[in-house]
Amino acid sequence: MLRRIFDDVLTNGQCHENLRELCKDIGHRLTASPESYEAIAWGKKKLEEMKLDSVWLQPVTVPHWVRGKVERLDFSNKNKPLHVSHCTALGGSVGTDGKVIEAEVIEVKDWEELEALSNKQVKGKIIFYNRPMNPALISTFSAYGGCSGYRFYGADRASKKGAVGVIIRSLTLRDDLNPHTGSMGYNDSVKKIPGMAISSKDSYILSNMLKEDAKTKLKFKLSCQTLPDTISYNVIGEIKGSEKPDEILLVGGNLDSWDIGEGAHDDGAGVVQSIEVMRMITALHYQPKRTVRCVLYMNEENGNMGGKGYAKYAQEYKEKHILALETDRGGFSPRGFSVQGTDEQVSEIQKFKSLFEPYFIHYFQKGYGGVDIGPLKDGKVCLVGLVPDSQRYFDFHHAPSDVWENVNERELEMGAGAIMSLIYLADNYFQN
Amino acid sequence: MLRRIFDDVLTNGQCHENLRELCKDIGHRLTASPESYEAIAWGKKKLEEMKLDSVWLQPVTVPHWVRGKVERLDFSNKNKPLHVSHCTALGGSVGTDGKVIEAEVIEVKDWEELEALSNKQVKGKIIFYNRPMNPALISTFSAYGGCSGYRFYGADRASKKGAVGVIIRSLTLRDDLNPHTGSMGYNDSVKKIPGMAISSKDSYILSNMLKEDAKTKLKFKLSCQTLPDTISYNVIGEIKGSEKPDEILLVGGNLDSWDIGEGAHDDGAGVVQSIEVMRMITALHYQPKRTVRCVLYMNEENGNMGGKGYAKYAQEYKEKHILALETDRGGFSPRGFSVQGTDEQVSEIQKFKSLFEPYFIHYFQKGYGGVDIGPLKDGKVCLVGLVPDSQRYFDFHHAPSDVWENVNERELEMGAGAIMSLIYLADNYFQN
Repeated sequence: MLRRIFDDVLTNGQCHENLRELCKDIGHRLTASPESYEAIAWGKKKLEEMKLDSVWLQPVTVPHWVRGKVERLDFSNKNKPLHVSHCTALGGSVGTDGKVIEAEVIEVKDWEELEALSNKQVKGKIIFYNRPMNPALISTFSAYGGCSGYRFYGADRASKKGAVGVIIRSLTLRDDLNPHTGSMGYNDSVKKIPGMAISSKDSYILSNMLKEDAKTKLKFKLSCQTLPDTISYNVIGEIKGSEKPDEILLVGGNLDSWDIGEGAHDDGAGVVQSIEVMRMITALHYQPKRTVRCVLYMNEENGNMGGKGYAKYAQEYKEKHILALETDRGGFSPRGFSVQGTDEQVSEIQKFKSLFEPYFIHYFQKGYGGVDIGPLKDGKVCLVGLVPDSQRYFDFHHAPSDVWENVNERELEMGAGAIMSLIYLADNYFQN
Repeated sequence: MLRRIFDDVLTNGQCHENLRELCKDIGHRLTASPESYEAIAWGKKKLEEMKLDSVWLQPVTVPHWVRGKVERLDFSNKNKPLHVSHCTALGGSVGTDGKVIEAEVIEVKDWEELEALSNKQVKGKIIFYNRPMNPALISTFSAYGGCSGYRFYGADRASKKGAVGVIIRSLTLRDDLNPHTGSMGYNDSVKKIPGMAISSKDSYILSNMLKEDAKTKLKFKLSCQTLPDTISYNVIGEIKGSEKPDEILLVGGNLDSWDIGEGAHDDGAGVVQSIEVMRMITALHYQPKRTVRCVLYMNEENGNMGGKGYAKYAQEYKEKHILALETDRGGFSPRGFSVQGTDEQVSEIQKFKSLFEPYFIHYFQKGYGGVDIGPLKDGKVCLVGLVPDSQRYFDFHHAPSDVWENVNERELEMGAGAIMSLIYLADNYFQN
């Protein structure tokens, strides 16, 4: 059966063409943007065309942040009167109310350096978190994990000391001009200050300018704002199980994306792979014993209201999820699966390992499942994350370079084949 | 030690920058071309700068084929008066002596279809081998193996039946406009006819034009020619072993490349990874017990005179090669090693497998070593090929798209780390 799955996806796969539609015909699709609603309609139509047993939209309340038109961050010091940086607002940032903020900057590499500064030193300044990802880590997600907290919490912690803004070095392992956005959070008890990211190359430039002249100034203007919460939707399609229709096997990715680039790897890839699983079940005339459900989640990037909302419905309707698989780590060659569950569940999944080895898929370890499926966690469901090769992921993640052209057709298809294979095996051989 | 190796290569690696020099400052480097001699000087200088125990050039007699300026192949039929294709001469092809060859074309998909044609049918025609690579095969090299014989032997077999030329569908799994070259051979007893490749998209066009009109004509002109054999060089650098200096561990790739594109994945990647191993041995202050030798082979692409010449010298000087590792399958994320040796040797290498798993390197199987190291085979030496992820390789192989920009820095470095790790382990723990 695995051989039939991979033959089919590599020969008849539709996911690369579907990804082209999602990225090129619709484009990026930040939660509550017009494009996000287009993507919902597109996803629903794709699932409906497959004649599944049911397809529906699941309403969820979501945040509504808009970037606005103006994003500009300039550096200047005694040697260089103007350097216009490659920048982006962090998602969720407040804007500058039409004003230009101009201030001196203090560079820190971690919380310790921030905390060593007195409130007097920080007052009225901009904090620059210049923290490169650690290139020595083999999993680039681990390297990301060592930095992403500065993006999320950096503004509040600097604000408490009196800063007027923060900027971070983009979270990437490449030295290039792409700024990478991503979510930041505010605690309502702290004064909200704007947050931005600059490209890794601009980080070197700024750091060097600060070495030349400690009085280097930054000047920036942002027109982003947060509008009232609104309603959006998870898109769901399912094929009823023939023997155990109440036992659900879930496969999903997130339909929303950041609003720079096209959200191709993050997470257009996961969306089209999840749709592809439903296509393959139909194309291979496979009748699952358990119910297989495809969920295209909304709002993973800035709130996870889709994931939380889905779990709430599941609890309300007492749905029994056996296994939930998330694909949200890029459309690269699959290496294996990361299993978040009991030791017994991990062993159950590891039993399948030898079947995957002919497909160069070898990694079966206990680990993290994913953001969207996380809220389902109840001590019973087995959460699984697809683990693709991670070396290139942060070249594109949340950046203008995350476009369709950078997703290889075969790598994307191999990932879909891996997911479909696990769903097939879980349907037949997974004890939970 | 493996951790130190990967830390070093991912943090201080020079291979991506070296590849930039080789691809951008020199460019493609077909055997006997001016650029190939520049590359020899460059490789020698790189190794000399590392202060190895010795660096030398090993002369070998090589073929000298030149593409010339004119390569054109046009299609026409009753509906379409002119379609100019994306084409390339196959390496080693004869030219057309300044003439334009115009003839009708017969499409075949395999030898069986060719042999089913009478000599009368073929006489004066052009044979079009329209044989796509099989997308269902997980290793794209296996898919390539199912087609490459048509490129190499196709002209002779068509010529025997009276054809005046052959064209092949490019050997790639992508539908695009890149023509892919590669070597073809002639048997001197058969009349030599020219061979060309057209892009996969042009193959669809030609095939459709033939369906519309069986009298579709091709018109082509090539100015390539074969000049007399000349002298070129393998570039060799070595670090003497402290305990067993007569036992050699070899690591190598080929310095020559095809003359379209920049030979970035094929095999600039292998060249800079081999050089990187020598850099790491020095940088990590590692004193090998056995002699470690880096060989940058000439003429892998169209004759393998470098590999054959090296083996001849090795035999003449009674050199004892313990293990020879070739890296010539692209600068992609490493998946493992393919071991060409006795069952005992395969087991010896498989013993190391668990040490590589933290680096997502899991594949340790009996299999093919490589073209350059092949002639060393004597029943004693263990031949090993680095196996990177193969999904994207034939997007670039022998094509204009094989350029530096398409090689990811971390993937290239991970490959170099894998090779260095195996060399370290072989130095200390490999019984032969």
